[in-house]
Amino acid sequence: MSDKEIVGKAFLDLAKYEEDVAKVEDDIEHYRLKMMQPMVERRDNIIKNIPEFWKIVLSQHTSFADFIRASDFKYIDLIDKVKVDWLIIEDPKQYSVGDFRITLHFNSIDDDFNEQTVSKVFKLIKGDINEGDTDDETEEERLVSEPVDIQWPKSYDSINPSLIEDKHSKEGKKSYRQGMKSFFGWFKWTGKKPGKEFPHGDSLATLFSEDIYPYCVKYYTEAQRDLEDEEEDDSEDNSSEEPLDLEVESESEESDKKRRKI
Amino acid sequence: MSDKEIVGKAFLDLAKYEEDVAKVEDDIEHYRLKMMQPMVERRDNIIKNIPEFWKIVLSQHTSFADFIRASDFKYIDLIDKVKVDWLIIEDPKQYSVGDFRITLHFNSIDDDFNEQTVSKVFKLIKGDINEGDTDDETEEERLVSEPVDIQWPKSYDSINPSLIEDKHSKEGKKSYRQGMKSFFGWFKWTGKKPGKEFPHGDSLATLFSEDIYPYCVKYYTEAQRDLEDEEEDDSEDNSSEEPLDLEVESESEESDKKRRKI
Repeated sequence: MSDKEIVGKAFLDLAKYEEDVAKVEDDIEHYRLKMMQPMVERRDNIIKNIPEFWKIVLSQHTSFADFIRASDFKYIDLIDKVKVDWLIIEDPKQYSVGDFRITLHFNSIDDDFNEQTVSKVFKLIKGDINEGDTDDETEEERLVSEPVDIQWPKSYDSINPSLIEDKHSKEGKKSYRQGMKSFFGWFKWTGKKPGKEFPHGDSLATLFSEDIYPYCVKYYTEAQRDLEDEEEDDSEDNSSEEPLDLEVESESEESDKKRRKI
Repeated sequence: MSDKEIVGKAFLDLAKYEEDVAKVEDDIEHYRLKMMQPMVERRDNIIKNIPEFWKIVLSQHTSFADFIRASDFKYIDLIDKVKVDWLIIEDPKQYSVGDFRITLHFNSIDDDFNEQTVSKVFKLIKGDINEGDTDDETEEERLVSEPVDIQWPKSYDSINPSLIEDKHSKEGKKSYRQGMKSFFGWFKWTGKKPGKEFPHGDSLATLFSEDIYPYCVKYYTEAQRDLEDEEEDDSEDNSSEEPLDLEVESESEESDKKRRKI
């Protein structure tokens, strides 16, 4: 082979290599998820004994607030359980490493909102929204989902999409859009109708799966510390309040450097 | 147990959990290194057929340049092989997941610099520089190393620490410091004499192990593209130059999203 042919072959070999390495990386990720699964279960069993754990995490998480309208936090505060399950652990034949299910448990508000548990599955697929496009070169991975049922609060009746009778009137359209932008609209997100759904529904899903859920202890500890600092500022003599996060605090500093992915 | 006791126990359990999860994470990292090792070997066998691969990667890498004096690049350009070996793969009993060896091969410059291969081992240890301090709470992980021999270029005789006879004169001190700050001074770095060694020698090691070496194909492709853009700008009619990175380019766009860690 000429030098030029050798170099040309090297680039072809690299392209094939990148394909193969992607498979090995998926295998490594599968192993990671499998090993972490019992650990996460153990963690979740511990944190359920900490009062208002998820309320504190969710209400103090800066990026989460970017997705949630201020008025929705009344209902976010009702969430007392968050769980992310990686579906490849349950069924490696049907699912790949990027597929997951988010489960949230909501407490109730009398005469307004029912206690309920809602699960939503997100699948990582390749290909453009336009399914006719099968050009491998442009194939990007993206999340898709199916709408799931959730009982909306009564106070949201006017923007609840399933209660809006005339979706074509100006008023109806506006209310529909408002509803779709609320946190409850997120449960209808599919990733197939851009511009007409909950905005950046995929990013909110990823925020749960890759940030909030894996690092919830870190966020809780930080939020507790911030809240205590505020309390201290408010009333210096409030010494009856015991700081509860001493044990975790020292661990958390370490996990800032080497963030625990769970 | 009272509510307060339950919560107190939860925090103790979390602290223990964090310890255990660190072990699982080390196990996962060991698995990852083991699985990637043959892949990296395959990649290195491909890229050795690409002319000036490492010269292009190292000369175009922005953060790398932060560690290297401009005048040292004459010798950086002689590097035609970079390798990072994770020592736990070779000896899991003696080493932990953070320990690695960087090996560089230099070509020669007649009458100035000898061809040579130099290896330097970095170990991740816990504990402060002050070894008397055994307070677990403040234990941070940090890299340490031992000085290794490298033959300096003749042109550096005046700043070569082993050739400076009077290290206490003003001139001697200055030359010594200059030498220690050169890329060749990095091979003497230990991490035990802060302020007196190659600056941020640990960060340069980590840059090799966590960035340059794992993502070298991505950096090469980007650098090639930049160089070609520059050439195009310089002479639009230079059509005899064939772009060599077409095969890799499409892969590289994907790996921007999901960076290949090798």
